[in-house]
Amino acid sequence: MSSLTEGILLTDQYQLTMAQVYFRLGIHEKPALFEYFYRKNPDYGQHQAGYGVFAGLDPLLEWMETARFGTEELEVLRSHKTRAGKPLFGSDFLAWMGRNGSFDGLTLRAVAEGRVVHPQVPLVAIEGPLAQAQLLETALLNKLNFETLIATKSSRIREAAGPAAYILDMGLRRAASGAGNAATRAALIGGANRSSNVGMSHELGLQAAGTHAHSMVQAFMALGMGELEAFRAFAEVYPDDTVLLVDTVDVLESGIPNAIKVFEELKRKGHRPIGIRLDSGDLAYLSIRAAQMLDKAGFADVSIVLSSELDELVIWQIHTQIREEAPRYGVDADALIKRLVFGVGTRMVTSWGQPALNGVYKVVAVQDGGEWKPAIKVSESIEKVLNPGRKKVWRLYDERGLASADLLTLFDEDPRAERSLTLHHPSEAGKLRKVNVEVCRLEPLHAEVWLGKRLLEPQPLEVLRERHRKDVELLDPGVRRLINPHTYHVSLSSRLWQLKNQMIEALTQGE
Amino acid sequence: MSSLTEGILLTDQYQLTMAQVYFRLGIHEKPALFEYFYRKNPDYGQHQAGYGVFAGLDPLLEWMETARFGTEELEVLRSHKTRAGKPLFGSDFLAWMGRNGSFDGLTLRAVAEGRVVHPQVPLVAIEGPLAQAQLLETALLNKLNFETLIATKSSRIREAAGPAAYILDMGLRRAASGAGNAATRAALIGGANRSSNVGMSHELGLQAAGTHAHSMVQAFMALGMGELEAFRAFAEVYPDDTVLLVDTVDVLESGIPNAIKVFEELKRKGHRPIGIRLDSGDLAYLSIRAAQMLDKAGFADVSIVLSSELDELVIWQIHTQIREEAPRYGVDADALIKRLVFGVGTRMVTSWGQPALNGVYKVVAVQDGGEWKPAIKVSESIEKVLNPGRKKVWRLYDERGLASADLLTLFDEDPRAERSLTLHHPSEAGKLRKVNVEVCRLEPLHAEVWLGKRLLEPQPLEVLRERHRKDVELLDPGVRRLINPHTYHVSLSSRLWQLKNQMIEALTQGE
Repeated sequence: MSSLTEGILLTDQYQLTMAQVYFRLGIHEKPALFEYFYRKNPDYGQHQAGYGVFAGLDPLLEWMETARFGTEELEVLRSHKTRAGKPLFGSDFLAWMGRNGSFDGLTLRAVAEGRVVHPQVPLVAIEGPLAQAQLLETALLNKLNFETLIATKSSRIREAAGPAAYILDMGLRRAASGAGNAATRAALIGGANRSSNVGMSHELGLQAAGTHAHSMVQAFMALGMGELEAFRAFAEVYPDDTVLLVDTVDVLESGIPNAIKVFEELKRKGHRPIGIRLDSGDLAYLSIRAAQMLDKAGFADVSIVLSSELDELVIWQIHTQIREEAPRYGVDADALIKRLVFGVGTRMVTSWGQPALNGVYKVVAVQDGGEWKPAIKVSESIEKVLNPGRKKVWRLYDERGLASADLLTLFDEDPRAERSLTLHHPSEAGKLRKVNVEVCRLEPLHAEVWLGKRLLEPQPLEVLRERHRKDVELLDPGVRRLINPHTYHVSLSSRLWQLKNQMIEALTQGE
Repeated sequence: MSSLTEGILLTDQYQLTMAQVYFRLGIHEKPALFEYFYRKNPDYGQHQAGYGVFAGLDPLLEWMETARFGTEELEVLRSHKTRAGKPLFGSDFLAWMGRNGSFDGLTLRAVAEGRVVHPQVPLVAIEGPLAQAQLLETALLNKLNFETLIATKSSRIREAAGPAAYILDMGLRRAASGAGNAATRAALIGGANRSSNVGMSHELGLQAAGTHAHSMVQAFMALGMGELEAFRAFAEVYPDDTVLLVDTVDVLESGIPNAIKVFEELKRKGHRPIGIRLDSGDLAYLSIRAAQMLDKAGFADVSIVLSSELDELVIWQIHTQIREEAPRYGVDADALIKRLVFGVGTRMVTSWGQPALNGVYKVVAVQDGGEWKPAIKVSESIEKVLNPGRKKVWRLYDERGLASADLLTLFDEDPRAERSLTLHHPSEAGKLRKVNVEVCRLEPLHAEVWLGKRLLEPQPLEVLRERHRKDVELLDPGVRRLINPHTYHVSLSSRLWQLKNQMIEALTQGE
C-alpha cells in the first residue's frame, strides 16, 4: 500500500466534490465551524457504557501535520472523470487545492485526551475555511471514533477488574488490519497496564509483555519431548520472567503439576516464578483449583493469568464465581482475586457488541459578513436535531466535588459569572433544573490544540492515563455501573436553548 | 506513528521470547509447519454466514517483503529487560535475528484470494525455520482475519441486494483507525461495486464514488440560501453526476420536490440526472414515495440511493417491504428495486454482530531427522482438536458441478487417483460418507505463493472479484442462505482421520 492511501486522500470522495462546489460559488474560504460529537454511549447489548473516554486526538494532530495535497495527490484528482468523460475537477480548483489543500487555516478546540466524555458534547470544534474544514471530516471521524470506542471499552474492563488488577492487552492479532496500533494505544489509555504489541508499546515508552503460546509446547511434543521439557526450557531462558501456559495438554493433570515442578527448580536456583496462564475452559473453576495446587506447593504469590474472550461481564462473572466457589475448595477468594492477571484481546480491541462509535462531524455555524450564523439540521427525531452555533463546553462539579453535568453555552457566555444557572435538557422542553453556581465548580473543557499548526505537543501516555483515572473517580457510582448505568446530564444554557428553539420554529414555519 | 510500529515489530512479545527459547535449544532452524484456519463461520447473532471469503493475502505478502529486523528494530529488543533488570534478549540471539529475522526462509501455500472458504480448512500453510514461522503469526492473523471477515460480510450484503444492485462502500469514517483501507479493499472483493475512499480506490484502479453531505445544504442555509440553491449549485458543477441528498430538511415536502426542480433544469440543458439519496427514516416507505414522485415527474430512470446503517438483513427487509407496499402506491416494486443503490458503511466495515474472525495459527508438524512429525493440541472440546500433520486441501464438485465438500488429505495422498473416497467428519467418529470419484471433480485448493520471496504477483481487483462471484455461484443455495444456512461439509480422508485418532489415543494413554 502506498503512502498515498494514508495521507490526505484518506477521505470520502464527496468531501472533494463538495469543496469544488464551494469553490465555484466563492464560499470555500468562508469561515465555518464544525463539531465532532457522538450521539449515544456504546450499547453492547446486555450491557451499556455510562460514559465515554476521549482518545485519538494526538494521532489525529500528527496526521494533520503532514496530510496535504502534493503533486501525486493532485494527479489522482486530475484523473477523475465525470460520467460524460470530462475532468471531474477543474484546473483552477486543483490549483487552489495545491496551495490550500491542507489544514493550515484551521483552529481546533478540543477536550483533553483521556478525559471522561458524554454524548452530545462537542469533543472537538473545528473552525476555518469551509473547504478545509470539510476536508478534515473523514480522517477525523476515522481516528477519533475508533480510539474513543476502544478506550471506553478498556475503561469498563478496568472497572470490572478493579483498580489493582493487572490487565494485559493481547488484541493485536484480532484487531482490524492496520488498526492494531491504534487499538493498543487506546487500550493503554483506558485501563490496560501493558500490551503484547512490541512496536507500539515501545513507541509509547513501555516494554511489551507476554507469556508463550501453545505452539511452543506442541513443537516440543512433536520433537519427542513433552510439556515439562518445554516449561523447563522456557524457565531456563527466562528465570526471572517465567509465566507458563498450562492448558496445552490437560490443566489439572499435566499443566499445573509440570509448572510446579519447574517453579520448584527455579526457586532452588534463587529465582521467583511469576505465573501460570489459563487460556481455555471454566476459568473461574480452574483458577480456584490452580490456586489450591499452587498454594499447597508454596507458590501463593504466583500470578494466575486468565485469557480467552474476556470482557467486562466475563471478568465480573469470574469474580462472582470465585467468591462463591473458592471457599468450598479452601481457597481464600480475595487472595485469589488479587493474584489474577487478565489477558484481554478480541473483545476489547473490537469493542465487541458495539464495534463502531456513532460519532459525527456536523457544521453548526458559518461566518457571513464577520458574523457567525448558526446552522441546524432538522431530522425526523427531535433528539437528532443539532445544537446550533458557536459554543463553549463546561463541566459542573457539585458540592461533593463529583461531576454532575456537562453544560453547553453560547461562546460569549461565562456561566462562572452567574449566581444561578438553568440547565435545560437538550431536546425535551420543560425538563430543566436550577443550579446555585456558588456551591459548584465550573471547568471549561475545551482548549486550543491546533492553530494553523499543532499547539499541543504529544503527551506522555502516563499523563493521559492519570487524567482518565482521575476523571473516572469523579463520576457518580451510578454512572460507572456496568449495566443500565445512570444517565449523566448534558444540558444547554438558557440562551443556547432559546437559539435552538427559535431556529427549529423558523425552519418549521418556513415550509 | 513511526514506521517502526508497522514493520516486523507489529508482533506480540511472546513470538520473540519463544524464538529465543528455540534459539537456545538449537531448534530455531528446524523446519516447522503452521496452518492458518478459522474455526467457525461468522455468527452475527440473528443471522449466520454459511461460508467465508478469503481476503488479505496480497497485503500480507506485500508486508512480508519489507518486514525484517534492521538496526532500529534490534535496538528496541536490546532495550528490553528482564524483571531482574538484565537484557531480556542475548546478543547472540539478536545477531541471529539481524541475519535471519525476516521471512526469507519460508514457503507459503495458500488458497487463492477471493475464493469461498470454509471452517477448519487450512487457508495458508506456512513452512520453514521454526523461529521464522513463529514470527509471522501476529501479522498474518491481523491481516487475514480482518479482510476475510469484511469480504465475507460484503459478500452477504451482495447476496441480499441481488446480483444487479449497485453497492457503494461508504465505511471509511466508521472503520477502525488505520483499517479503513483494508476494509475498502475487502468490501470491494466481497461485493461492493465502488467505494467512497479516494486513495484506496485509486490504488485499486477504481475511481471513488459519492454524493454530498447534509453539511452542504446546512452551509447554504446558514448563509441565507436554501436547499434548492444548494441542489442547484451542485448540479451546476456536476451536471452529469448529480445525486442529491434529500433529507436535510424534509424528504417529501422539501427534498424531493427541490430535487425534481433541479432535475428538470438539468434535463432542459441536455443532461441526465443520476439520483437522489435517502439517509434517514423509513427507507422502504420513503423510497416508494420518492419513486412515485420521480415517476410522475418523468424521472423513472433516476437512481434512489439508500444509506443509514444498512446490512444484509436491513436490505432484505427493504426489498420485502417494497414488494408488499409499493403496489398500494401504484409503484412497480420490481422497477423500484432495480433502481435502488445501497450505500453501506458501518455495519459492513466492522462486520457488525461479529467484529472479529476467530482465525488461528497453529503448528501442525515439525521436521526431525528429515521427517515431518505431526503436532497436535488436545483441548477440552473435541471440535477444537487440531487436524495434525502436513496436508493437502481439495474441493469436491458433485455431478451438478456444485461444490459439495472440502477435503483434507495427507500431503502424499492424491484422491484423484482413487476410484472412491471416504469422507470423514473431522471430529465425530462414524459420521462418514462414500463418494464415487469418477462422477466428481477434485480441485486442489493450495498453490505456492511465497518461496523465500513473493511468487504471486499482485492481482487486479477484478480478478479477485470475478473469482469470488464464480465461487459463490458454485455453492448450494442452502449454503448461501442469510439465516441458518446449510452446513457445508469439510471432511478428512481416511488416512488423515486415522492419524488424528492415533495421536489423540497416544496422548490420552500417555497421561
